Amino acid sequence: MKPKIAFTGVGRMGANMARRLHDLAYPITAVFDIHRPTAEALAAEIHAAAPATLAEVTAAADVHFTVVTDDAAMRAIFAPQGDSLLAGARNKIFVNCATLSPGIHAEVERAARTAGAATLEACMASSIPQARDGTLYLMCGGDRSAFECVEPVLKDLSASLRYVGETGRAAQVKALVNMVMNIHTAALAEGLGLADALGLDLGLVREVFSQTGAASRVLQTDGEDMQKRDHACFFSAAHAAKDSAIALDLAHQSGLQLPLAEATLAQYRRLVELGLGGLDKSAIAELTFLGRSPR
Amino acid sequence: MKPKIAFTGVGRMGANMARRLHDLAYPITAVFDIHRPTAEALAAEIHAAAPATLAEVTAAADVHFTVVTDDAAMRAIFAPQGDSLLAGARNKIFVNCATLSPGIHAEVERAARTAGAATLEACMASSIPQARDGTLYLMCGGDRSAFECVEPVLKDLSASLRYVGETGRAAQVKALVNMVMNIHTAALAEGLGLADALGLDLGLVREVFSQTGAASRVLQTDGEDMQKRDHACFFSAAHAAKDSAIALDLAHQSGLQLPLAEATLAQYRRLVELGLGGLDKSAIAELTFLGRSPR
Repeated sequence: MKPKIAFTGVGRMGANMARRLHDLAYPITAVFDIHRPTAEALAAEIHAAAPATLAEVTAAADVHFTVVTDDAAMRAIFAPQGDSLLAGARNKIFVNCATLSPGIHAEVERAARTAGAATLEACMASSIPQARDGTLYLMCGGDRSAFECVEPVLKDLSASLRYVGETGRAAQVKALVNMVMNIHTAALAEGLGLADALGLDLGLVREVFSQTGAASRVLQTDGEDMQKRDHACFFSAAHAAKDSAIALDLAHQSGLQLPLAEATLAQYRRLVELGLGGLDKSAIAELTFLGRSPR
Repeated sequence: MKPKIAFTGVGRMGANMARRLHDLAYPITAVFDIHRPTAEALAAEIHAAAPATLAEVTAAADVHFTVVTDDAAMRAIFAPQGDSLLAGARNKIFVNCATLSPGIHAEVERAARTAGAATLEACMASSIPQARDGTLYLMCGGDRSAFECVEPVLKDLSASLRYVGETGRAAQVKALVNMVMNIHTAALAEGLGLADALGLDLGLVREVFSQTGAASRVLQTDGEDMQKRDHACFFSAAHAAKDSAIALDLAHQSGLQLPLAEATLAQYRRLVELGLGGLDKSAIAELTFLGRSPR
């Protein structure tokens, strides 16, 4: 029998994961979002409840997915007192999918244990279409027993599912993936920006890049968007800044200096300061093409 | 009938291109290198002459490949006076394969025209095994007639052959490719260096990178080498520094600031300053792994 499932944080990723599980006939009993109309719209679409409190969400389901924005939001929904997912959480399991600092996952795990609940971090290295199609790349950290408990549901959400170690490990790997991805995005923006300044044909340049040492996944996902200035958001510049900052915090704690990651973070922070943080990460090209720059 | 061919500059790339054409029964009549024993060894291997002067090289062949180190070497072999490939060069064609600044290609084209010779830039976006196997990625710039004249030979050297425009254009595209490739290399070194500092399994991390937004061609070519510290040279750190500098010169001339390319150049310059410029570009990982760093 399929477990009852609830989602807390139903932005683009969370909502599409809920839709995917709804398609597969999982009972999605409750959805919650800090922006209530977002939750209500999704609830109507997939026949879920949209409770006013987190305690009601907890009561409504056995397996809880959380896909919130940042560490602060995570601490708020798992608060030890007041309205919280941890109220009446005994024997519930919380699968935490947001890209957060590794430390917060361990913090939430401890709080959940105190409440008699289990947690699993399930970091997603994919984007919105993969959430909708159930083809996420999922990396999990936590107790293996917690992983095995929700493995069938996670398989229905993913094309690739990996258990990478104790709580916090998946977030570390995810931070690394996004740090490198962000650098590649910044690199592509520089390459295409310079190509454009030289009067080269950007279609030709992208084709050459794709067949040489300049090839990358980011070239496939963001190259044409940079050329066409189509920055409809799949993964926001603000998120890119957040994730690069998480990775750099880990680096600094380890005593490492990573100048490329630093330069990339500076570019994404500049986009955010310019009020462009809500655009897709491809918008970094707005900083590297002559005549586009909002400088 | 196959044209007589000579090579000037028979380092690892030039020598392997010569071997490839020798395998296909092209008459390689002369080879030349500033380091004479290198030329003599190759000459013995492929039954070519190793003349003492550039003028003799010119006289020995119809089609000349040049694969020299840098702009200065290029100016030296195409000097207007003294011993030079341009002595007696009427009706010869020079196919210039080194990664040079775009400006030098135009300069050599003008000098060759004065001498009654034709030139073609044929930039290679590949490495040593591809030179040996005749599977280079070649981008050509110059007069289309010069391109068509040597097209059959170039096809025998390449898996992909492209005419990209007037003289200098191919060098521009090549500089862009290498600029982006170098950034990717620096990015990978940072990602794996941080993964190592965190105690993560680098095999796992590389596998995750390969399936996510962190995927790149450089990950395939350099990832394992960085992990194993195998920096046997395919493309040297010194060359990486040179090529990033060429791209940044173009950027500065265009009024563009490219912070990632700058940070990458600084890393490669540091390797060169540390006396590690002769190692493969993967050696940049020596700067980003704890306990390796020669700082």
